[in-house]
This record gives sequence, structure tokens and C-alpha cells, in this order.
Amino acid sequence: MTTHTTQEGSAPKGLEPLEASFPSSHKIALPVEHGGFTMQVPKRRIHVSAGEPPVDVYDSSGPQGCDLRQGLPTPRAEWVRGRVPGPGGNVSQMHYARKGVVTEEMAYVAVREGCDPEFVRSEVARGRAIIPANVKHTELEPMIIGRNFLVKINSNIGNSAVSSSIEEEVDKLSWSVRWGADTVMDLSTGPDIHRTREHILRNAPVPIGTVPIYQCLEKVDGKIEDLTIDLFLETLEEQCEQGVDYFTIHAGVLLRYVPLTAKRVTGIVSRGGSIMAKWCLAHHEESFLYTHFERICELMKRYDVSFSLGDGLRPGCLADANDEAQFGELETLGELTQIAWKHDVQVMIEGPGHVPMDKIKENIDKQIEVCHEAPFYTLGPLVTDVAPGYDHITSAIGAAMIGWWGTAMLCYVTPKEHLGLPNKKDVKDGVIAYKIAAHAADVAKGHKGARDWDDALSKARFEFRWQDQFNLSLDPVTARDYHDETLPAEGAKVAHFCSMCGPHFCSMKITEDVREYAREKGVVDGEALDAGMAEKSAEFLKQGGEIYR
Amino acid sequence: MTTHTTQEGSAPKGLEPLEASFPSSHKIALPVEHGGFTMQVPKRRIHVSAGEPPVDVYDSSGPQGCDLRQGLPTPRAEWVRGRVPGPGGNVSQMHYARKGVVTEEMAYVAVREGCDPEFVRSEVARGRAIIPANVKHTELEPMIIGRNFLVKINSNIGNSAVSSSIEEEVDKLSWSVRWGADTVMDLSTGPDIHRTREHILRNAPVPIGTVPIYQCLEKVDGKIEDLTIDLFLETLEEQCEQGVDYFTIHAGVLLRYVPLTAKRVTGIVSRGGSIMAKWCLAHHEESFLYTHFERICELMKRYDVSFSLGDGLRPGCLADANDEAQFGELETLGELTQIAWKHDVQVMIEGPGHVPMDKIKENIDKQIEVCHEAPFYTLGPLVTDVAPGYDHITSAIGAAMIGWWGTAMLCYVTPKEHLGLPNKKDVKDGVIAYKIAAHAADVAKGHKGARDWDDALSKARFEFRWQDQFNLSLDPVTARDYHDETLPAEGAKVAHFCSMCGPHFCSMKITEDVREYAREKGVVDGEALDAGMAEKSAEFLKQGGEIYR
Repeated sequence: MTTHTTQEGSAPKGLEPLEASFPSSHKIALPVEHGGFTMQVPKRRIHVSAGEPPVDVYDSSGPQGCDLRQGLPTPRAEWVRGRVPGPGGNVSQMHYARKGVVTEEMAYVAVREGCDPEFVRSEVARGRAIIPANVKHTELEPMIIGRNFLVKINSNIGNSAVSSSIEEEVDKLSWSVRWGADTVMDLSTGPDIHRTREHILRNAPVPIGTVPIYQCLEKVDGKIEDLTIDLFLETLEEQCEQGVDYFTIHAGVLLRYVPLTAKRVTGIVSRGGSIMAKWCLAHHEESFLYTHFERICELMKRYDVSFSLGDGLRPGCLADANDEAQFGELETLGELTQIAWKHDVQVMIEGPGHVPMDKIKENIDKQIEVCHEAPFYTLGPLVTDVAPGYDHITSAIGAAMIGWWGTAMLCYVTPKEHLGLPNKKDVKDGVIAYKIAAHAADVAKGHKGARDWDDALSKARFEFRWQDQFNLSLDPVTARDYHDETLPAEGAKVAHFCSMCGPHFCSMKITEDVREYAREKGVVDGEALDAGMAEKSAEFLKQGGEIYR
Repeated sequence: MTTHTTQEGSAPKGLEPLEASFPSSHKIALPVEHGGFTMQVPKRRIHVSAGEPPVDVYDSSGPQGCDLRQGLPTPRAEWVRGRVPGPGGNVSQMHYARKGVVTEEMAYVAVREGCDPEFVRSEVARGRAIIPANVKHTELEPMIIGRNFLVKINSNIGNSAVSSSIEEEVDKLSWSVRWGADTVMDLSTGPDIHRTREHILRNAPVPIGTVPIYQCLEKVDGKIEDLTIDLFLETLEEQCEQGVDYFTIHAGVLLRYVPLTAKRVTGIVSRGGSIMAKWCLAHHEESFLYTHFERICELMKRYDVSFSLGDGLRPGCLADANDEAQFGELETLGELTQIAWKHDVQVMIEGPGHVPMDKIKENIDKQIEVCHEAPFYTLGPLVTDVAPGYDHITSAIGAAMIGWWGTAMLCYVTPKEHLGLPNKKDVKDGVIAYKIAAHAADVAKGHKGARDWDDALSKARFEFRWQDQFNLSLDPVTARDYHDETLPAEGAKVAHFCSMCGPHFCSMKITEDVREYAREKGVVDGEALDAGMAEKSAEFLKQGGEIYR
């Protein structure tokens, strides 16, 4: 692996240790043997008191304590060593899956998700799930995106011409995965696009996605009409070599869809979509992404880069949701999916955007139908346009719903959406809002074991195990700080009450009484109760009728 | 009106002026003539640039600039003067509605909601909507709660034995309504419960709700088994006289439901519910709230206090959602609704709580059925239990969904839920998360005109009218501050780009091109496009093919 130094020259600040973000947690590694390798699948183990079992949660945080200038270790290098393809070769996970081969990545993912490796293989083979894993991204801890697995979230980072440094972006990457981002997109559009990406990839334990047309546009000095397929393929290859795991490619923006956006309130809001629309208008041709799609597939299968087929015509406001332009493009993405699959190239489909709640389900239902069950990957959607500054919330509402209904990955939105570039706090706020949405979706889908985490926390809450309640939460330190604002004393954290009700109003304490009574009588239904009730009532009053201590 | 002085003696700090929270907004009053009175119905008018019409939004903020020690003006005093009932009399809105009378409150509400007064009357008459409006609460600006009107939100304030002062609570009241709370519940449990409530009511332009059993419990020094119907009625009357507009009464906690909670993960989490459960166990009797329910109705109709029938057995975690205890109680609340309606007493029904997304719809569908369409008023629901510190988000997700499906009012949850008492920042965060949920629900329901606000903001966004975008948002100052963090210069706020993309990547600018083309050609569909496309393409390139400035 190459050693990288930041141009800025200063030592990277690095993050606080994992334990500072997650007290009473530590990383564990579940060993898995496959193909002669012993792989280590990470989990975060949350220790709980009172004899309760620890809670092991999915962990995307990656190796800790590495020097950002050196990059992460590359355990995957040996798994992929034998996979370098000859001319016309194919190293995609879908390719192996369809040949009946369970790859190291599939075996790894199976342990990570708690399912059978053969099930992983079959889902990848039929295109209902993808494992974005460029063979050149050897720092990767493989993960899977598909609606029969845990719902995933993506965070976006990247500098622009007007803001932020490489080091800041790498810092946001590490911060994103710390809080739970499953993939990260580098959306940089600034001058240092190649070098920024290199630093990001070498420090990325998660799949990295890009929108290659941005770099192409830098290469032609912003002259959209000068973009060509050759420049595009050259740029793709450059990024393939670096190890990018998935490309957003807006190949579905067809000439005939463009005028359909003219009457929209917000027209075309996707950057890639608007670039391709302008190219189409300028040349009066279908875009080179569409007409040369198979050449793109030929390249991507040699590295196993996955498509994230971009929704260039996604709605940018509620008024434009579910219109002809959007759904026309979606059908084209479905056609392109089948072409990619002919080449065994993995595909996911991007979706909106801004959609009122009553129109969300139609999006996922239609996507599943016309895109042949390829995984859906949506941005939110935001369910109202009136709350800039709070769009992590407006969009987490839509994201939770569309995740429940079958969307496989949710692209986060930060509080800065529509207003500016996110800082570290915004990244964390966005990731946590989306962890909430994704987990709520897993629970609503009845995903095996998903609710165990909720139940463990609820039990801790009911039993006044305050530290356990904090430690089990998505953001333990914030939970603890909020508690301490009202009742800072250490003693309050073992108290059998809290600041909301005080010691004389605690419903949870009263419930213990009810429970104890039922336990004694062995009753859990009304019929069995009456007999012993009068007797118990008398006894209860005799004892003082008081349970507060 | 009595003049009140705070025991603390210090002058109330008061809030920043309305204009500081909402730049380019000012309050307007729509005059309405009814019954010989001229009433003033408030709206907030948001001024927009570029010749666009102003946007008038629902406004709950109440009269501004009043001295908290003096209370608000009492315009409603003259409307209700003739309504004082004799013995057995009834002054409820439902009573008048059923007699065919459109009250001042109904006429006021009709203007506020933009609908016909007769429609308001008919909805109140059939119990599908309520206007909580104690005749003693003369500071009130009437509002309506029902699923055919705008979805409303409630904020909770109130001190406990361990925290906060009266002045802080009145401050939170004013702050709540500033940001959009439609009703406020005073959940105080501390020593100064009567005086706190008095200060709150005299400064409340919105309906105030309470849970009277809390004060009763103070009166018996926390000895639950000493609670009696006489003490309860005496306390109700005290609160009726003060002007409380609705009472949460947990009259549906029946003896036979209590053991059903024994196997729950979190038992009984409602304070009122647990108090009544303990009373039932101690006496081995149905609770006095249930057995003397008609006496309670008799009292409440003399003041027109509305029932908020409490869900004492609501689930406190996902694991306990939609169980037999919860739905058993809901059926009892339906029976009690019919008894209240026999007395023409207005009723709404409280609902959960903690519910996974896939179980939310069952709650509202069942409530509508068994409670005969009485308005539903839910707390969230939270859709996951793993995010203490972020429960305004976990619950806004469920609230938006259940609002869309027919819930009439959403009780807010702040980031401090389960952890501590909310401060002013938490109150604002909770209110805004719930304004998002309620508005998203209005839009999804297709409520007349609801989306106009979104469309006005989206149009401003598309046209780079930054100040309009800020001013039209739920929280303009936060939106502006977020923008300024990345691009602070004043010039950037008239720029036709933003920090996310920079000047060379602006999809919105490219879209203008597309739009202009379509406008020239008069085309909005693909068929009409082809003919002129080649010509346009040549022309476009000749002009430089470049629209960036």
C-alpha cells in the first residue's frame, strides 16, 4: 500500500477513542474460516449490568487508532489475489454467485448479518442484493445491500470549490463510520479530486461511492458539451484503479424525458442529471452514458465496481414528486439493470428525494417492479419542504417509511441540506437520524433479532439501570449528558426515579407492584384474577399500601 | 382579571420579539363578525420578494409583548358572558352545535382553518372534532382538533418536585406557542401546582390541558389509596374555575386489564395509569373515575371542559405495543365516549406511545372504529427505543405517519424524553419536529392548501431567493445561520449558487436552460420535442453552450 502524506503537512487530529463515544463497549471479532483464510468479522459488544447478557451490534467503525497518513490495514488483499481477470474477465460478486461460488466476501457478510452464506450467494446471484467491493479496495470490510438484509445507510462527504480540506473530509469519513454509516460517497467537486479520493479510500473500511461525471467535468473545465465517452471511461478506469466500490451513473436521462421537467417547480435538481440533460440538449443525442452503457459494464466487471444507477430526474420538491419524468427515467434504469446483469455487473437504483408521505409507497413498489428487484437506494425522501435546517428530520421520516417498505439503503441528509456543507456535528446528526430510520425499518420489517436491541434498552429503562440505558443507546454520551443536565449527581443514576416525575410519581415503580402481584397469583388474565383479588387487596393495605422507598 | 405577581419577585425576562424569530413576518388579524362581536383571527404573514404573493400561515403565538405578571388580554370574556349555566346547565360547544347554534368559537375557528362555520358546527356536533374552550379561559384564541382540520400539536411543560420555577414554565409556554404549539399541557407535579397553573392559564392563548389526578395525589400526600371521587371532583372544580380547557382522565384503567400488563417489558408507563392501577389493586374495585364517570361529565359540561381520555395502559416500549391491555382500555374509552356525548361533553382519546411502524395503522384504525370517530391524540409514537437523546426524531416519524392516517393532534416529544425535563431549547426542538410531522401529515392527507407553503419555499429555492427561502422556513434564523457558516458574505445570499456545489455545478442553473428551451418551443412532452431539437442544439452551441455566469 502506498503511504500518503497530507499536503497540509500537519499530523491528522484523529478521533477520540471509540470507548469515549461508546462507554462500556468494545469491538469484538467473530472469526470465520473460508477458502483457507481466517477472516475477522467485527461487532461492537455493549456490556450490560445486572447479569444481563451483552448486546452485540453491527459495527461499521473499522480498525481504530490508525494513522490517517498510513491508511488502514489491507486484510482483503490476500482474498482477492487470485481474482485479477484476464482480458474480458469478470471478478464481480454476481459473476461468482451465478457460478455457484461463495466468495470470501459472501462468507464474511453472512456472519455479519447472521444468515446463511448460501442465502447471501443466492440473493447476489439474482440481483436482489449487492456487495460493493472493488478488488482494489483491500481495506474494505465487506457489507451487503439488499432488502432481505439489514437496512443500510450512506453518508455523503466531499469538498467543493468553495469549502473544506482533504483532512477534514477524511476526518468526516472516520466520524461517519464511527456513528454507523455503512457506505460513504465522496462527492468532491473541488480541484484536488483525485488526491482527496485516494486519502478517503485508503482510510475507508466501508464501500466508497463516487459520481465520476464530476471529475470528468473538471477535466473539461466545466464545458459540459465537451464530455465524451472516452473521457468518461478513462476517468472510470482511474477511479476503478483507486478502488472506488460503486459509481453513480446517470445513464437514464433520455432526451425525451428532459422537456418533461420544464413545467416542474424545481426542474432538475440532481447535479449529474442536469449535466447529462444539458449534454443531451447541446448535442441533440442520447447521452453517451446510455448509448455506450455496455462499454461501461465491460470496464466495471473487471474490478467489480457496482452501478448505482442515478436518478438524474428525481423530484427536488413535493410538487414534482412521482411525475412522468421521474418514473420515465426509472423505467429506463430498469432496462439498464438488465443490460448490466447480462455482464454480471452488480446494480442498485437511486431514488428520490422529496416525496409527500402518501406518494412514497408508489416509489418503492414501482421500483421493485420495473427494476426487477435490484436494491433501491433513496435520498430521504423529505416529506415536507418547509424546514430547511431540519431536513435530517423531514427526510428521516420518509426514509424510515421507504426502508420499511423495502428500500435497501438510505442516503442520509444532514441539517445543512440545501444550506451549506456539513461539518462534523452535522455528519453525526445526519448519521444518527438515519440509523434511527434504518433500525426502525428493520424492526417494522420484522427482521430477525432487530428488536432485541430495543428490548434490551427498554428492560434497562424499566429496571432503572441508567448506565445501561445510556450505554445501549445510539449516542450514549449525549443521553447521559441530557440526564445529567437535570439530575447531575452520580447517585441519581442509581435512583429508582428520574427528574420527569420525581420519587412520588413513578409509574415504573408502581408497575413493579402490579407485576409482583400477578407473579404471586400466577395470573396473567382477568379471569383468574377475581378470586384472589379481594384477599390481595386486604393484604396489600395491611402492609401499608405503599411501595415507595 | 386578577393581577399576578411571581413569588420570585423578579421581572419576567420575556421572549425576543416575534420579528427576531421570524424576520419579514408580521402578524395580521382577519376580522370576523359573529353574534354582534367583531373578532380578530390571527395569521402570520410572511413577506416574499420578487413580486411573489405573501404567504399567510396559521399562527398560535398569541398577543405579543404582554407582561407575564399581567397576563394576556381577555377578548373572549364578552363572547361567553351570556353562557353561564344554571344548575344542570350546559355550555359546551357540542351542546350548542347539536342545537344547531354556530358559536363565536366556531365562527372564529372557521376563519382560522379556512372552512365553512357550518362545517365546523357539524363536526363538533357529531363528536369528530372538539373545540377545547373552558368559558373561564377568556384569554383563549379558539382552535379545533379533528381529523378534517389541520393536524395540531401539543407541547408539555410543567415543573416536578425536583426541578424548575413557575417563571421558567410560563416562559416555556410562550416559547412553545411562538414556534407553533396548538395546545399546551401543564404536567406540573411539584408543590406549587395551583399557582403555576394560574400563571400559565393567564398567559395562554392556546387551550391548556392538565392531568388532575396529579394534584389530587399532592392533596393526599402521595397516598394513592386515599384518593376518592369527592376529592377528585373538588380538584376538578378548582381547575375548571381557573380555566383549564381539557382534562386527561384515565377512566379506562379497569381492574381486569391490570394483570394483562404483568408480562410486559415495561409494564405501565403512564403516571396516571399507574396511579389508577394501584388504586384498583388496593381497593379491589373499579376506579372511581370509571364508576363515577357521569358525575365528572356533569361538572365538566358546566364549564365546557373537554375530556382527553387518558391511555393509562399505553405501551412504554415497542415490545408492548398493540397488546391486549392497550386495546382493552381503548374499547373502554370508546364506551366512555358515548357516555360523555350523552352529556354533550367533548371528547378526544389519547393514544400511544411506543409502536413499531408496522403496527401504527392498526392503532388509528381501531381507535376510529371503537371510539366512534372521536379525535385521536397520540404521543409520537416512537418507532424505536434505541435512541434516547433523539426521541423527538424517533417519535416524529411515528407522529407523521399516524397524523397522515387520521390522528387529529400529536403530543410532542423532546430530545430530553426519558432523560430529564426539557429546557427552552428542547421545547423548541420538540415543537419544530412536531410541526414537521403535522405539516407533512396535512400535505399527505391532501388537506386543502397545505402544500402551498412547501411550493412557495421550493420556488424561492429554485430561483435562488435565499432570504425568501430562510423567511419561509419553520425556523428562519437557524436556516440563515447554517447557510452563513459556509458562505457568510451577504453577497452569497443573492448568489445563483451555493456552497454545496459551487458555481460550476449548479443543477438549478442548468435547469433554467432546459426550461427556457421548452418555453420557447412550447413543448412539454417528448413528441413535440424532436422536430425542433436539432435546430435548438445548433443554436445553443453557437451561443457558447454555456449558461454559467
